[in-house]
Amino acid sequence: MRIDIISAVPDLLLSPLNTSIIKRAQDKNLVEIFVHNLRDFAKNKHRQIDDKPFGGGAGMLLMPEPFFLAIEYLRKDRKYDNTIFTTPAGKIFDQGYANKLSLSKNLLFIVGHYKGIDDRVREYFATDEISIGNFVLSGGELPTLLIVDSIVRLIPGVLNDSESALNDSFMDDQKIEAPNYTRPAIFNGMEVPDILLSGNRKLIEEWKEEKSNMLTEKWKKLNSLEK
Amino acid sequence: MRIDIISAVPDLLLSPLNTSIIKRAQDKNLVEIFVHNLRDFAKNKHRQIDDKPFGGGAGMLLMPEPFFLAIEYLRKDRKYDNTIFTTPAGKIFDQGYANKLSLSKNLLFIVGHYKGIDDRVREYFATDEISIGNFVLSGGELPTLLIVDSIVRLIPGVLNDSESALNDSFMDDQKIEAPNYTRPAIFNGMEVPDILLSGNRKLIEEWKEEKSNMLTEKWKKLNSLEK
Repeated sequence: MRIDIISAVPDLLLSPLNTSIIKRAQDKNLVEIFVHNLRDFAKNKHRQIDDKPFGGGAGMLLMPEPFFLAIEYLRKDRKYDNTIFTTPAGKIFDQGYANKLSLSKNLLFIVGHYKGIDDRVREYFATDEISIGNFVLSGGELPTLLIVDSIVRLIPGVLNDSESALNDSFMDDQKIEAPNYTRPAIFNGMEVPDILLSGNRKLIEEWKEEKSNMLTEKWKKLNSLEK
Repeated sequence: MRIDIISAVPDLLLSPLNTSIIKRAQDKNLVEIFVHNLRDFAKNKHRQIDDKPFGGGAGMLLMPEPFFLAIEYLRKDRKYDNTIFTTPAGKIFDQGYANKLSLSKNLLFIVGHYKGIDDRVREYFATDEISIGNFVLSGGELPTLLIVDSIVRLIPGVLNDSESALNDSFMDDQKIEAPNYTRPAIFNGMEVPDILLSGNRKLIEEWKEEKSNMLTEKWKKLNSLEK
């Protein structure tokens, strides 16, 4: 997989893209990630990339031209399966969406900052408009990183066997995983549930299933997702 | 405001905490952010911080002791209004939650990675269990950064007047903002809506209101949030 990200604040993306599982996936050549500085595609002499919105209002908007130049430059060499625009108005991201995107060969992320991007960029290029949730952020960089992380870990070979993602919360039909415990069995007077120490595989699986169902119900109530 | 973050992968957090609006808020002394390396609180000679889960299963869990030592160390010097644990099982984050947290004086984030944290840490310390959405990530670092960004920009003085957040999507009762445009008025054959160039304040506000309502309805349908 190849991932291209166009951002006005490329430095923000550096450490998450070069740490932990995303770094390892690149080291193994399972994914290539390229961050492009929007300012490199500014044509005028001040390398201007933002301007005031028409019709008034607070904040600065990213101008259409640098994005058009950047995207056309990238498209000369490859076709993108998905051109992703992170926006509060988009479809709320979930594991099904991550699964779908993980099958793509080339992904392009168009990332806004401050007040956002001139809407003609979205209209002309976006194939996927994705929201991470109902809250205001300083830009699309952090949502982009979340999406990249959720996708990259699904590429075959990125996680090793012992990290297999299959039991994680939400991998299995929107179920919350049972609580996990490690050593010591008693810490600060708090004990690990006996059954997990029993060695009885069948009883342990039943306990995990029951806890998982309980937590999933609790989570649905907490978030008013009950039908 | 003071924010403490305990993480097993502290390097991941560096660039987003030192760029753009979060950096500026720190430069203005409106927020102090301290990242603590969980490994500095590992007591045994190999500085071990993770171990296999009891009862079997894939992946490594972060052990309880380093978190207890780190949290007790931090609590010696101050009281935390909120001790935040990012988890898929938590309450889904939204702007109302961000507004509430932005009023706190001291926030502590307990961040898991890989398979997560021994559940006794959550049980003993967490006052707020927060989820960013229904998808699997490599750790709680990116959700923590999202929450921090959404909170920090609400602290009075962080945004300047021209960045005033009041018109952003979701600031106003879960409404999506109208599309924004900047110069040039015609780009690549695509025109900015005439009305935005009219200078007629009243008509512009009516247009924005109408577009905002349309996009909000579209967004609700897209995400099946219709009652």
